[in-house]
Amino acid sequence: MGTIRVTPPRTLFSGQGSAYIGKAIASSLNSSSSICTPGMRSSYYLLRPYSSPLGKRNFSSTSKQQLEVFPPPRDAPSIRVTPAAWQHPVYSEESMKQIAIARRDVRTWSDWTAFNLVRLLRWSTDIATGYRHQKEIKKLEDNPNARRFEMTERKWLTRFIFLESIAGVPGIVGGMLRHLRSLRRMQRDNGWIESLLEEAYNERMHLLTFLRMAEPGRFMKFMVLAAQGIFSNAFFLAYLVSPRTCHRFVGYLEEEAVMTYTHCIRDIEAGRLPSWSKLDAPEIAVRYWNMPEGHRKMRDLLLYIRADEAKHREVNHTLGNLDWHKDPNPYVSEYKDPSQSHPTKGIDINKPVGWEREEVI
Amino acid sequence: MGTIRVTPPRTLFSGQGSAYIGKAIASSLNSSSSICTPGMRSSYYLLRPYSSPLGKRNFSSTSKQQLEVFPPPRDAPSIRVTPAAWQHPVYSEESMKQIAIARRDVRTWSDWTAFNLVRLLRWSTDIATGYRHQKEIKKLEDNPNARRFEMTERKWLTRFIFLESIAGVPGIVGGMLRHLRSLRRMQRDNGWIESLLEEAYNERMHLLTFLRMAEPGRFMKFMVLAAQGIFSNAFFLAYLVSPRTCHRFVGYLEEEAVMTYTHCIRDIEAGRLPSWSKLDAPEIAVRYWNMPEGHRKMRDLLLYIRADEAKHREVNHTLGNLDWHKDPNPYVSEYKDPSQSHPTKGIDINKPVGWEREEVI
Ligand SMILES: [Fe+2]
Ligand SMILES: [Fe+2]
Ligand SMILES: [Fe+2]
Ligand SMILES: [Fe+2]
Repeated sequence: MGTIRVTPPRTLFSGQGSAYIGKAIASSLNSSSSICTPGMRSSYYLLRPYSSPLGKRNFSSTSKQQLEVFPPPRDAPSIRVTPAAWQHPVYSEESMKQIAIARRDVRTWSDWTAFNLVRLLRWSTDIATGYRHQKEIKKLEDNPNARRFEMTERKWLTRFIFLESIAGVPGIVGGMLRHLRSLRRMQRDNGWIESLLEEAYNERMHLLTFLRMAEPGRFMKFMVLAAQGIFSNAFFLAYLVSPRTCHRFVGYLEEEAVMTYTHCIRDIEAGRLPSWSKLDAPEIAVRYWNMPEGHRKMRDLLLYIRADEAKHREVNHTLGNLDWHKDPNPYVSEYKDPSQSHPTKGIDINKPVGWEREEVI
Repeated sequence: MGTIRVTPPRTLFSGQGSAYIGKAIASSLNSSSSICTPGMRSSYYLLRPYSSPLGKRNFSSTSKQQLEVFPPPRDAPSIRVTPAAWQHPVYSEESMKQIAIARRDVRTWSDWTAFNLVRLLRWSTDIATGYRHQKEIKKLEDNPNARRFEMTERKWLTRFIFLESIAGVPGIVGGMLRHLRSLRRMQRDNGWIESLLEEAYNERMHLLTFLRMAEPGRFMKFMVLAAQGIFSNAFFLAYLVSPRTCHRFVGYLEEEAVMTYTHCIRDIEAGRLPSWSKLDAPEIAVRYWNMPEGHRKMRDLLLYIRADEAKHREVNHTLGNLDWHKDPNPYVSEYKDPSQSHPTKGIDINKPVGWEREEVI
C-alpha cells in the first residue's frame, strides 16, 4: 500500500464518499471493464488507424497515449484522490427523457448573426466529420453513396470529441473576460462568472468522458488544435464586441448539440449502434453524474450529457436576453417569492428558448 | 415589499442563511453604517479630488458612481440575493496573527527572474503610490521630505485598490490557459484550475471590499486600466512560456503583499491611522469571511486579507515546486495517510516558502 493508489481526475464528488471512490477506481483499473465490455471488440475502441471515404482520419491509439488519459500519474505516491471542483446537480431520469429538440426564433440582427454563424459551423463540421441526420440518409437510400453517411460508433465518437473540445471554450473565455472587466471597471459581476466557469468545466467533463472510450489519433489532435486556435481567438474578440450575441450564439450551438445527442440516442434505441447498446459508461461518468445503479449504460450517459447541453441552451439564451452590464445572473440568485417558477440549476424546469428578461429580473 | 430588495454581490454564503442575510443587507443599506462610522469624516472616504506631491491622483467620488458599486441593481425587482460562488475557509484569529513576513530564497535562474521582476514591480509601484516602509521613513526623520512618505488611510487605500486590481489577474489567466490546454491536449488537469480560479475570485473579493471604502477617481481608474492591459498580456505570454516561473513570481508577489498588510496592521496598532482604529469592516467583508461578532473592525479585516495573501504565497510557491505537466494539485487532493501533515485550504498549517515536491507528491 506504500505505492501509488490512484489520482482520478477532478471529477469525483468531493466530501464523504471519497475513500469508497478511491477503491472503486482502483478496482476498475484492474478489470478495465469501464473501457471494454466483453461483448465488444476492444480493438474497435482502442483504435487502429481508420480511413473514411472523406479522407484519412486517424482514430488510432498507442497504449502509451491511452495511459496518459485514464490512470493516475505514476509518481504521486502519497495522494489518494483529487476530488471534483463543481458538483453536478442531480437529474431525474424522467426529466432527462423530456429534453427535446427546440429552436429559438431569430428576432434581432444580433440573433440573425449568431444563428447563421452556427449554421455555417454546423455545415462545415458535418462535412469534416462525414455526418448527416438519419432522416436525410433515408432520402438517399437508393443512392449508392448513402452508406458513407451511416453513423457508426466510431464516427459518433469522433464527432463528440471534436465538438466537446470546442464546447469548453466559450465559458472560460466569457468568464475570464467578465472577471477582468470586474477588476478593471471596479464593479461587481452579479454572479455571471460562476455559471460561465461551471459550464466550461462541465463541457470539459464531457470531453474527458468520451476520451475514456477512444484516443484520438494525430490528425484528429491537429484538427482540435487548429479549431481551438481559431475559435478561442474569434470568441474572445466577439465577446469584447457583443456578449449578448455571443450568448445567443452559444444558445444556438447548444440547440445543435441537443439535436446531435438526440439523434445518437435514437440510433442506440433503434439498434443501429450494436456495440453501444450494452456498453457501460466509464467510471469517470458514473461518478461525475452520480449515475444510479442499473442506469449506467452508454444510452444513460448520453441522456445526462444531452440534459447538460439543454441546460446550457437555456442558460445562454437567458443570458442573451439580459442586460450583461448590470442584470444579476438568475441561475445563482435567490428569488423573493420562491413559489414563483424561476431559473434553477436542475432540469426539472427547462425552458429551451431561455427566460425572457421580464420573467426573471 | 413588491419593490426591489437587494442583490448583494457574489460574496454571500450560499445556502441556509440567505434569508437572514438578505435582511441584514437591507438594514445595512438603511443605516449605511458600513460605509461611514460616526467618528470619521465621510468626505474623507466619499472622496474629494486629492493631489499628492507626486502628481495629481484623483480619489474622488460622485455619489452616482458610488451607487454603482454597493447597492443592488435598481431594476431587479424579483431577485433577493445572488450568493457566493466559493465559500471562504474559516480562519482562526490565532492562526491569522501568526502570519509573518517571509522570503523564499532564490535557488534557480527561474527563481531569480521571478524575484527580480517582483522587485522591479515593487519599486515602480512604490514610486507611483508614494510609499515607503515605516522603517525607512524613520531614517528620514530629520529630512523635511519625510512627511510625504507618511502613509495616511487614503494612501493605504490607493495602494490596496491598485494592488488588488492587479492581483486578480494571474489566477484567471493561469486557470484559463490550463483549461484550454486540457481541452486541446485532451488530458486531465489534475485539479490545478480549481485553485487558480479560486485565488482569482478571492483577490477580486479583496478589491470589492476596499471599493466599499472609497471610489477611485478617473486618474486611478486609468492607471488600473493601463496596468491590467500590460500585466494581463505579459502574464498570459509568460504563462505560455514557463508556468513554473509564473507561479514563483506570484509567490514572491504575495510575499510583498503579506509585507504590505503587515505594515498597515502595525500602523493601525500603533495608532498612526486614527480613523481606522474604530472603523467597521464593510458588510460584504463580514459576510465573505464570516467575521465573528466583536471582531469586525478594519484591523480584523486586514488580518483576514493578510492570511489570504499568505495562503496564495504558499500555494504559488508550492505549485512552482511541482511539475505542472502532471503533478496533481495537493490543495485539492486527499492524502492516503491523513495523519501526515499536508497542504490544506485553511491556514492552521502555513508554509510561507511552499511545500517541496517530495513532501506532497
Ligand atoms: Fe458538451
Ligand atoms: Fe454544450
Ligand atoms: Fe489580495
Ligand atoms: Fe494576493
